Amino acid sequence: MTPAATTPATPAYRRLSVEERRRQLLGAALSLFAHRAPEDVSLDDVAEAAGVSRPLVYRYFPGGKQQLYEAALGSAADELKLCFAEPQTGPLTRRLIRALDRYLAFVDQHDAGFSALLQGGSVAETSRTTATVDGVRRAAAEQILTHLGVAGTAGPRLRMMVRTWITAVEAASLIWLDEDKQPPADELRDWLVDHFVALLTATAATDPQTAAVTRAALATETADGPAGVLARRVIPVIAEATHLL
Amino acid sequence: MTPAATTPATPAYRRLSVEERRRQLLGAALSLFAHRAPEDVSLDDVAEAAGVSRPLVYRYFPGGKQQLYEAALGSAADELKLCFAEPQTGPLTRRLIRALDRYLAFVDQHDAGFSALLQGGSVAETSRTTATVDGVRRAAAEQILTHLGVAGTAGPRLRMMVRTWITAVEAASLIWLDEDKQPPADELRDWLVDHFVALLTATAATDPQTAAVTRAALATETADGPAGVLARRVIPVIAEATHLL
Repeated sequence: MTPAATTPATPAYRRLSVEERRRQLLGAALSLFAHRAPEDVSLDDVAEAAGVSRPLVYRYFPGGKQQLYEAALGSAADELKLCFAEPQTGPLTRRLIRALDRYLAFVDQHDAGFSALLQGGSVAETSRTTATVDGVRRAAAEQILTHLGVAGTAGPRLRMMVRTWITAVEAASLIWLDEDKQPPADELRDWLVDHFVALLTATAATDPQTAAVTRAALATETADGPAGVLARRVIPVIAEATHLL
Repeated sequence: MTPAATTPATPAYRRLSVEERRRQLLGAALSLFAHRAPEDVSLDDVAEAAGVSRPLVYRYFPGGKQQLYEAALGSAADELKLCFAEPQTGPLTRRLIRALDRYLAFVDQHDAGFSALLQGGSVAETSRTTATVDGVRRAAAEQILTHLGVAGTAGPRLRMMVRTWITAVEAASLIWLDEDKQPPADELRDWLVDHFVALLTATAATDPQTAAVTRAALATETADGPAGVLARRVIPVIAEATHLL
């Protein structure tokens, strides 16, 4: 706690530009909203964390806590959207691994806020916050379709496949938080990559575009990469099911 | 519109028992909430649809629209929970097909209400409605684990797999509604079954319990069933990827 927080009438904080101050308040808000449900964060908490007076917070965010929450959410959303941005080179699974590592690091850092936001029923939830979250999902789907080489040309089945996988990633992240971050993040990430490869391959069975994309993706994979390891591990499980062929 | 709806002061409706009346009001509310977002349904609409006066609706639901909404949601949730209840016999995919047919029929019948509820941001959403929806998800997961023969003994990976698949079913249903119920429901259902089989098999690669469950499930499948068709269709897609083995 800084002196400024207890005696807001005589602020001791240094002069910041409007933009710097805004960013500082947003940063303080984001770190509070990251670890508590919005209903458990007060404007006083934000003022205290930023070492400023409550009226100063109101000057920057006249809409009070809800405005601050939505601004913090928007800034977190911008960060999340960058998770799946990745150079279009190398095996697909390597790119997914890097993207998921960034995504899961974000989930780890914003645990309680992430749960509160996605589990719904929060008082701070509005059609605007829902739209922000949907914007992240859409951006992630676009990035993945770009990695699959079909940005702008993906048919409905491939788009549905990618969107359901993104939902599965979210659901798995919530379960992971709920289970005290078990299994370790890298195990969860490997399973989510396997999940993607399996879903892509199963969808290829009935959708020609997905089949072409799957063939192209598998061609860039290596025997020691996730697709190779998955293939060799799946074979013994299905080897007994020759009656299906 | 009945005469009772326009002249509520002189009700013409026949005498119903308390329980009958309650069920009638709930039925009228449910069919309204099924096709409109909760904010677009008024208590007058419910009274009119049931052919009764607005005060009568209040007598049964003193909490007004929110109470009626939550009661209607509870009754819809009870119906949804039954979707995955199915005799424990025959191939797993046949059971999933029947369950998904019931689930998608429900989604079809409650389209706008289903979307409004699950897309979040509705004014009628509270921690109670969220808990009701979560109760449906939990019940569906328990049913599926029962079909896999591991009710009560499923490890974390298998539980996570089932829960993420249920989330994927929800997400796919929302996309389906959003895209004017395309593809036809039976195509969507077949893809969701393929999705389940693929996810189960991929999870089997790293989880011994899932591997045992997958082996047992595949043993009950037939060549002309979904697992057989999927296997024969996937083989040509992955046949070129021998460099992974």
